[in-house]
Amino acid sequence: MSKEKIPYKIYLEESEMPKSWYNLRADMKNKPAPLLNPATKQPMTAHELSAVFCDELVKQELDDSTRLFDIPQEISDFYKMYRPSPLVRAYCLEEKLKTPAKIYYKFEGNNTSGSHKLNSAIAQAYYAKKQGLKGVTTETGAGQWGTALSMACSYFGLDCKVFMVKCSYEQKPFRREVMRVYGASVTPSPSTETAIGRKILAEHPGTTGSLGCAISEAVEVAVSSEGYRYVLGSVLNQVLLHQSVIGLETKAALDKYGEKADIIIGCAGGGSNLGGLIAPFMGEKLRGEADYRVIAVEPASCPSLTRGVYAYDFCDTGMVCPLAKMYTLGSGFIPSANHAGGLRYHGMSSTLSQLYDDGLMEARSVEQTKVFEAAEQFARVEGILPAPESSHAIKVAIDEALKCKETGEEKTIVFGLTGTGYFDLVAYEKFHNGEMNDYIPTDEELAVYREKLPKIG
Amino acid sequence: MSKEKIPYKIYLEESEMPKSWYNLRADMKNKPAPLLNPATKQPMTAHELSAVFCDELVKQELDDSTRLFDIPQEISDFYKMYRPSPLVRAYCLEEKLKTPAKIYYKFEGNNTSGSHKLNSAIAQAYYAKKQGLKGVTTETGAGQWGTALSMACSYFGLDCKVFMVKCSYEQKPFRREVMRVYGASVTPSPSTETAIGRKILAEHPGTTGSLGCAISEAVEVAVSSEGYRYVLGSVLNQVLLHQSVIGLETKAALDKYGEKADIIIGCAGGGSNLGGLIAPFMGEKLRGEADYRVIAVEPASCPSLTRGVYAYDFCDTGMVCPLAKMYTLGSGFIPSANHAGGLRYHGMSSTLSQLYDDGLMEARSVEQTKVFEAAEQFARVEGILPAPESSHAIKVAIDEALKCKETGEEKTIVFGLTGTGYFDLVAYEKFHNGEMNDYIPTDEELAVYREKLPKIG
Repeated sequence: MSKEKIPYKIYLEESEMPKSWYNLRADMKNKPAPLLNPATKQPMTAHELSAVFCDELVKQELDDSTRLFDIPQEISDFYKMYRPSPLVRAYCLEEKLKTPAKIYYKFEGNNTSGSHKLNSAIAQAYYAKKQGLKGVTTETGAGQWGTALSMACSYFGLDCKVFMVKCSYEQKPFRREVMRVYGASVTPSPSTETAIGRKILAEHPGTTGSLGCAISEAVEVAVSSEGYRYVLGSVLNQVLLHQSVIGLETKAALDKYGEKADIIIGCAGGGSNLGGLIAPFMGEKLRGEADYRVIAVEPASCPSLTRGVYAYDFCDTGMVCPLAKMYTLGSGFIPSANHAGGLRYHGMSSTLSQLYDDGLMEARSVEQTKVFEAAEQFARVEGILPAPESSHAIKVAIDEALKCKETGEEKTIVFGLTGTGYFDLVAYEKFHNGEMNDYIPTDEELAVYREKLPKIG
Repeated sequence: MSKEKIPYKIYLEESEMPKSWYNLRADMKNKPAPLLNPATKQPMTAHELSAVFCDELVKQELDDSTRLFDIPQEISDFYKMYRPSPLVRAYCLEEKLKTPAKIYYKFEGNNTSGSHKLNSAIAQAYYAKKQGLKGVTTETGAGQWGTALSMACSYFGLDCKVFMVKCSYEQKPFRREVMRVYGASVTPSPSTETAIGRKILAEHPGTTGSLGCAISEAVEVAVSSEGYRYVLGSVLNQVLLHQSVIGLETKAALDKYGEKADIIIGCAGGGSNLGGLIAPFMGEKLRGEADYRVIAVEPASCPSLTRGVYAYDFCDTGMVCPLAKMYTLGSGFIPSANHAGGLRYHGMSSTLSQLYDDGLMEARSVEQTKVFEAAEQFARVEGILPAPESSHAIKVAIDEALKCKETGEEKTIVFGLTGTGYFDLVAYEKFHNGEMNDYIPTDEELAVYREKLPKIG
């Protein structure tokens, strides 16, 4: 409790770092629904998936019964360059809010990619290298995933081809330059380099792109190039598996100081951070060993959990990827370019969708201006300039801490601070200039895309 | 020695963090020369200095006999938000270079200001607040100091007015935006807001500014505004005192693992990082308890130690500040705007100048392209995207490690990685595009400014 007892920042020793990733699906009674082949509507086989993904990652993707996967030594060594990440006790924020709540955040921004994305990037690059591939393709939205993958590929000597959502490409030239430091090639999406890109450009000439569209392009290039596979930074089971390192470290750090979380909060775009952060806690909840409130926070401009439907849908705009059962707004939904964060994906990880559908998790959507207000409040007392994505979690953590102030409850709130906002200063500038857009899609707009969902089962 | 024994990153416990700053001057036989009043040419008194600086900081500035200054609790608490900083064992760089040398770097970039500057900023803001001031003024070059001071002022609720060297202001709009997050006002220098700014603009209409010029403006505003003082991020004794926290942590971390440094390397602009990093090591050297090679690295475009003279000079272009005895290129020297790093100051801290003059320290100058080559090599193996300033130290650390490879010596090299390069991507872009400028001033150019040095004693 006292400042003497719990440090501002809890760093685990290297020897305390997780040796395995935890596969949350193994403890789920209702397993996430399988990916379907879009042509046959049958579950994707390992053989089919291996045209797109590395063999080892296909195994991880399909395995919903093995609880622990060993982290290979090469990946552990790389993790040690930037992990363990600190679990920070937000003493200054608590004092500012005058809340009896104890607030912790797991800060994943202390690496050059600026976010948690590196945790899965290095794993995926490792398996690609191990398989003897030449390179990988991917998409990136806000640019964090692309940067992370560039770093990982540079480390293992793999070629890296990134399709970057056009509006981010234009708003964030420096992101592209960082990827260049690590030797990646970066193409704004939609591009004329792929058939699907050309098709989308013909249909929507002025489009600023979307993650779903960039995914289609990256997959097309991967399957049509010798020695290449596609890698994805979120949504997939394998990504959540790798990201479990966040939650495992968080829990180990809390356990070390005898602290127990009451509320766990994370921002949710495709679900990579939230899925990783909550994994071991949700595991305990599923096994009936402990209870936690888990809150997913999404932007009001792209509200897949709070306003989407739970159905099979395409993961990409071009409909070249398998179908996933998830909370979705429809694969044709292209979120407002005015939203600054990277949480602009039409769907949500199948695992998180199933947990949400089973009532094991809450969801909340927040508007952009409120998010930046929380971000600035946080930056001024805790020092760290947060990414807009992470600031969604900050907003709800502050809301929950203020509720504790009203009720007098001394709850322990843990949230994921996924990254830094150094490459989001155009958005901060808009916020300072009062030019931020709080656009929320209407029910009518959402209905248009919902009606186009594929009809399955 | 083995990976098992020494972790990739050594984090001290909070309880192992320094409780005091170490005043290197107390152990120097030849003390740094006192600041002189430019009018009387007599040593500046505490009374005179207190028109410009906070009272407590004046005491620290003038005290060359007290060895330790307690770090106040409020500053310790703030330090705990981002310190201890990691001492990183560069296993991956060692492996890449195939050197028998052991390489460590003290990484000061894991805070939002992106550099070590916050260590002194929070101290100076604290003493300003304690004295009941309304606010402070300062200058910033590359922007790291201005950001750090903005954060510190925001924390203590002080007004913060920053004069930013014009070429950086234009090249780094996002830096300005970060300062805005923390509520600071930022003015490009030279500006029309001050008499000295107007004078410089009249004499050099196309000037891109310099640190010396921005200092003049900030001092003018401080002394002419009620309740304001001036604060400086480098050069001064007080700054080196606060920055000793870097070296104290570094030494404590090495001691903890039984490691002894052979060579200590730091980049040097005004000397804040180098002076802090080497403090406890140089203390041992001065007391005859141990020996170390210390190497200051400066840009070939602004070579104050390697090509300057040791003489009294003005600290600022406008000649409103006291005179300091230092290695200097002349206060009229305005370094090439093509140099990307923040090491663009015409002089060097009096303390470091005296140590250099006494033969206790070496100096080396390096050209910009070589610095960026080293930066990129480092980024690709160690993950961290380094600031151009820090990369000067990386370049020489690599050179020394390669010498060890030739000789087979297993030396322990420690260098200061002062910050991250997230706001230097325009420079990285120039480097990638082959547009980097390696301009080095000619002897004739340097002679022009040398002849204008004030004639003292």
